[in-house]
Amino acid sequence: MPTRRQCANAIRALAIDAIEKAESGHPGAPLGMADMAEAIWRHHFKHNPANPAWVDRDRFILSNGHASMLYYALLHLTGYDLPITEIESFRQWGSKTPGHPETGVTPGVDMTTGPLGQGMASAVGMALAERMLAVRFNNQEHNIVDHHTWVFCGDGCLMEGVSHEACSLAGIWKLGKLIVLYDSNGISIEGRIDGWYNEDVTARFTAYGWQVIGPVDGHDAAALDAAAVLARAETTRPSLIICRTRIGFGSPGEDSEKCHGSPLGENAALGTREALDWHEPPFAVPDDIYAAWDARQAGRQAEEKWQAAFAAYRKAQPDSAAEFSRRMAGDLPADWPSLAQNILREVQGRTEAAATRVTSKNILEYLVPRLPELLGGSADLSGSAGTCAASSRHFDPASGLGNYISYGVREFGMGAIMNGLALHGGFIPYAGTFLAFSDQAKNAVRLTALMRLRLVWVFTHDSIGVGEDGPTHQPVEQLAALRAMPNLLLWRPCDITETAVAWQCALESRRAPVCLSLSRQNLPSCTRSAAQLVDIARGGYVLRDCAGEPEIILLATGSEVPLAVETVSWLAGLGHRARVVSMPCTELFDAQDAEYQERVLPKACRARIAVEAAAPDFWRKYVGLDGAVLGMSAFGASAPAPRLWKHFGFTVEYLLDIALKLLKNYR
Amino acid sequence: MPTRRQCANAIRALAIDAIEKAESGHPGAPLGMADMAEAIWRHHFKHNPANPAWVDRDRFILSNGHASMLYYALLHLTGYDLPITEIESFRQWGSKTPGHPETGVTPGVDMTTGPLGQGMASAVGMALAERMLAVRFNNQEHNIVDHHTWVFCGDGCLMEGVSHEACSLAGIWKLGKLIVLYDSNGISIEGRIDGWYNEDVTARFTAYGWQVIGPVDGHDAAALDAAAVLARAETTRPSLIICRTRIGFGSPGEDSEKCHGSPLGENAALGTREALDWHEPPFAVPDDIYAAWDARQAGRQAEEKWQAAFAAYRKAQPDSAAEFSRRMAGDLPADWPSLAQNILREVQGRTEAAATRVTSKNILEYLVPRLPELLGGSADLSGSAGTCAASSRHFDPASGLGNYISYGVREFGMGAIMNGLALHGGFIPYAGTFLAFSDQAKNAVRLTALMRLRLVWVFTHDSIGVGEDGPTHQPVEQLAALRAMPNLLLWRPCDITETAVAWQCALESRRAPVCLSLSRQNLPSCTRSAAQLVDIARGGYVLRDCAGEPEIILLATGSEVPLAVETVSWLAGLGHRARVVSMPCTELFDAQDAEYQERVLPKACRARIAVEAAAPDFWRKYVGLDGAVLGMSAFGASAPAPRLWKHFGFTVEYLLDIALKLLKNYR
Repeated sequence: MPTRRQCANAIRALAIDAIEKAESGHPGAPLGMADMAEAIWRHHFKHNPANPAWVDRDRFILSNGHASMLYYALLHLTGYDLPITEIESFRQWGSKTPGHPETGVTPGVDMTTGPLGQGMASAVGMALAERMLAVRFNNQEHNIVDHHTWVFCGDGCLMEGVSHEACSLAGIWKLGKLIVLYDSNGISIEGRIDGWYNEDVTARFTAYGWQVIGPVDGHDAAALDAAAVLARAETTRPSLIICRTRIGFGSPGEDSEKCHGSPLGENAALGTREALDWHEPPFAVPDDIYAAWDARQAGRQAEEKWQAAFAAYRKAQPDSAAEFSRRMAGDLPADWPSLAQNILREVQGRTEAAATRVTSKNILEYLVPRLPELLGGSADLSGSAGTCAASSRHFDPASGLGNYISYGVREFGMGAIMNGLALHGGFIPYAGTFLAFSDQAKNAVRLTALMRLRLVWVFTHDSIGVGEDGPTHQPVEQLAALRAMPNLLLWRPCDITETAVAWQCALESRRAPVCLSLSRQNLPSCTRSAAQLVDIARGGYVLRDCAGEPEIILLATGSEVPLAVETVSWLAGLGHRARVVSMPCTELFDAQDAEYQERVLPKACRARIAVEAAAPDFWRKYVGLDGAVLGMSAFGASAPAPRLWKHFGFTVEYLLDIALKLLKNYR
Repeated sequence: MPTRRQCANAIRALAIDAIEKAESGHPGAPLGMADMAEAIWRHHFKHNPANPAWVDRDRFILSNGHASMLYYALLHLTGYDLPITEIESFRQWGSKTPGHPETGVTPGVDMTTGPLGQGMASAVGMALAERMLAVRFNNQEHNIVDHHTWVFCGDGCLMEGVSHEACSLAGIWKLGKLIVLYDSNGISIEGRIDGWYNEDVTARFTAYGWQVIGPVDGHDAAALDAAAVLARAETTRPSLIICRTRIGFGSPGEDSEKCHGSPLGENAALGTREALDWHEPPFAVPDDIYAAWDARQAGRQAEEKWQAAFAAYRKAQPDSAAEFSRRMAGDLPADWPSLAQNILREVQGRTEAAATRVTSKNILEYLVPRLPELLGGSADLSGSAGTCAASSRHFDPASGLGNYISYGVREFGMGAIMNGLALHGGFIPYAGTFLAFSDQAKNAVRLTALMRLRLVWVFTHDSIGVGEDGPTHQPVEQLAALRAMPNLLLWRPCDITETAVAWQCALESRRAPVCLSLSRQNLPSCTRSAAQLVDIARGGYVLRDCAGEPEIILLATGSEVPLAVETVSWLAGLGHRARVVSMPCTELFDAQDAEYQERVLPKACRARIAVEAAAPDFWRKYVGLDGAVLGMSAFGASAPAPRLWKHFGFTVEYLLDIALKLLKNYR
């Protein structure tokens, strides 16, 4: 029977070998955290390597994602579908072992990590999901949702502001099943951290309402066990276990930054093997150590026990069981198509002017009571963003009930927590803030897109239409930034009907997150034919047309569509064949076939003007060198909105002028 | 002699009146913080209303910027050039009283605020600047740099992660002259904050190494005074004064979120005047209260005293005095033109391949010892980003010496602190991180651009050239996001010569911040004629040309320029007239006259291909509908970089193929 240190050394050896072979990687953290990993994964972690999708498994987040080889070694050793050939292909093209952990690529990896701090922030969302689902679905006889969320994080994670935002909320939310092991090795890339990180972490996390355990010796298996037992025993406070470790444990660079981010090198690798008393060839693990790590049988038994419990639950509570299965599968309710149709039918009749943030709220009034998986929220702007429906209930930390979260002024934390909720399953998170403040959440949105999660951002106050609050609150460049992000759908609807289609798309879009860009100010409702109604979902369509081929096309989105419509009326009055193309979602338009695109934007018509109160360059994609763009090349200003629209040229007069000049060129 | 409460009520009355007249604004915070403002501004704040540019004034940052009317009332009452007509024009077009404070618009406003948390984070930079300048320029006889940085902030500021990042550093840096008054009113927009902010703020800031004073009654002038005295007496720890206040003090909505973000309304405004025992007509302030507030005489005396001290200093230390004046004026050293020429001459001779992050470091090796105003740093990536020159000295919190800062893993805090350093004056801050992590700092970069500060971001690892670290570390959409931001110059140089010109531009660019986008991987050096060398500074120029008018133009930036050059050689070999345009800074190219632009990109040539390993749409601006873009439409992947370049099509074969197809269209 191998010792626990020997088991931990198997992680170390695999990490060294893989990084040496790849000639790239981060040995310091896996060597330093191997004992922590052994303690948790062999003695506390509930999982079934044969089924990484088991819904009641414990979750594991490697927040310091550069320690990826630790993760891969764990998955390999415990019996996941990650053979040694994959370890040997670490960081190579097409392998299941990329440089940083990527969910969807590696069986058993619960989240894509790398940007420090976000892993632990998303773990807060996972633990929140567990708590809310447990309250919703468990009862006195049945306990079908009952798992922990484990996090490994490093000093860098705790330096990042997102750790403050999310961990402060975790304390308030009483997430007793969130357990963070802090790899406190005192080293970051630039060296010993005293010069840039010396805060009293215990005091800080105690201030957040956490249980803080330790510092414990992060290389002492028994001490780590005892800490984990303490953490699991706590039910109302998240736990932070401070583990004092030595980065690069066993290597010549131990306890210094030298071992952080590049292979040890052949000699140092040999020396480390010596120091660890590890005498196997590269990538070889003795059978008895494999056997000691093998979690397949225990994992199968654990899941079987749960399956039996769930079968009993299904028998006793068939509706709840079916609902639980549906939500964890991410399926919309069976009556969703008719719900969606009802909404579209309803909104088509509306004629009143309304801000799209308000029309979005009206749609949520219908959706929220009908879709229990919707978990709303806002970064302290619920009223302005229209995210809180009348039937929304604020999450109550005491009871765990609710379907709405006040995240406070924490856009980044909110985004990372939504990622955790979506990763866990059982929820479709949505949340709102001003579009200008999407900046603060940008890297969380990026991880959403990279992981292709289903969630919805409600970005309101989406232009200089904000008015008096001025340039800090008026987005200019944010639409371009979001459109440049792969995998993401950005919707900027012009009225309630487009907003309804946007929401429908958002909920049905399982592999592409959706951002809604909504106006602060009122916008008129457009009338549409049945064919136009259908075409909204194509992302771009002819909203107003002329007889025959257009001489000129005005493309617009959101609040600028009415301006384009009115200008085209004037052009028609002047005898011009002019068309308005509404482009609420350019990504979806780009995904249409060439025939449809040609129908909307015929190649022959080069007199095109794009109108959007945002950075203009993006629109050259559709208007080319021959067209024009009416956009915002400067930051906005503080004044009543009508004054700003006029100053920045968003008037019929000015747009008409551009159009007529353009038409002249084509005479 | 009016009471202190009456003086405070003048702020309240002006705030109410201005917000009522504007029919827009945030009365709650000015009403709540008026007593705090009276205590500090009438009794502790060192300033001269006649000269808001006095370098040794105290700095004041209203981190909860929505309380702007508090600020404007203070500036008006104490005698700044902000007449009552400006107060009456609050939030109107062209006024000096925008919705949120904007530096450069209003005399006396030290920073543009609005996005919560960033004000206090930038204040950390200001206090750091003060400390470093004091150590550099003061001596036993002369104390020419000696001022405090005062901050008002609210609950929202403390929720934001950037407050964690910056305040943690402020403690480490021993910024004893930073004094933050925390308006602890327990209310944010969504109501009483207990549900989303209940941490022990005293414990948190004590953990950071701050002196925490209070809670004190934020409406008790004597208590506030005593707290300010304590704070000023502390010299090695920043101070947080927790002021318990009632938002909307005196109004019917006092102590609730109702008074936060919209005018009180006529009746409530009247009621508030009654409650405050304020019986003046709108916008009227009794003479005795004006007199009590008037800081002009005391301010003039304070500055005169300093001017006398500075005159003595100039006499005793003429060189230091001249240097101090130069640095505070933001002028480069007198020999700068020759320094810049030396660099250009030197780099033109280089022929070796090098990563632009390395060439940037080489340039810094030359600049850092010669420009003492350069204050470098990195978010824990100094080695990778090449920001720490051999002559750089890490800031030592004990002595206050140094010209380089390890910010730790805190991109957002780093950006906000750089803003504070630049706002204070005396420094040109620069700092590095990976381009992918520009996301975390995005809103700080936005404020940099909005305020038109001089600072330099060194963004390295700027493409899939990152290789094995994978998609979390490979930027794709960041260049588009930064280019869409007004006032900003983004440079993506292709070799050491372009990098040198970029750095020269960065240092000479007083009103437009510069972001450098630099490669991880080696790039060859290009040869250039003298004319080409000059044209680099135009942002785009012909790097390789053909005889006669080009049939096809390849535009490229940074690491993709060599690919374009090689492809054009092949095209030439195949008998095509092909040109390479290097476009290291599109903003500068766009600023050139039409004649130059036509010379580089002749309208007649529509066969154009843009090559950049980033989101492609931006480039339609130059290649239009008829050209092509070789870019990154997806996130990257983890693998050795050569494999990625091949997979994503950045090969001569593929680019040649695109070019030949395009040329076919023009046959």
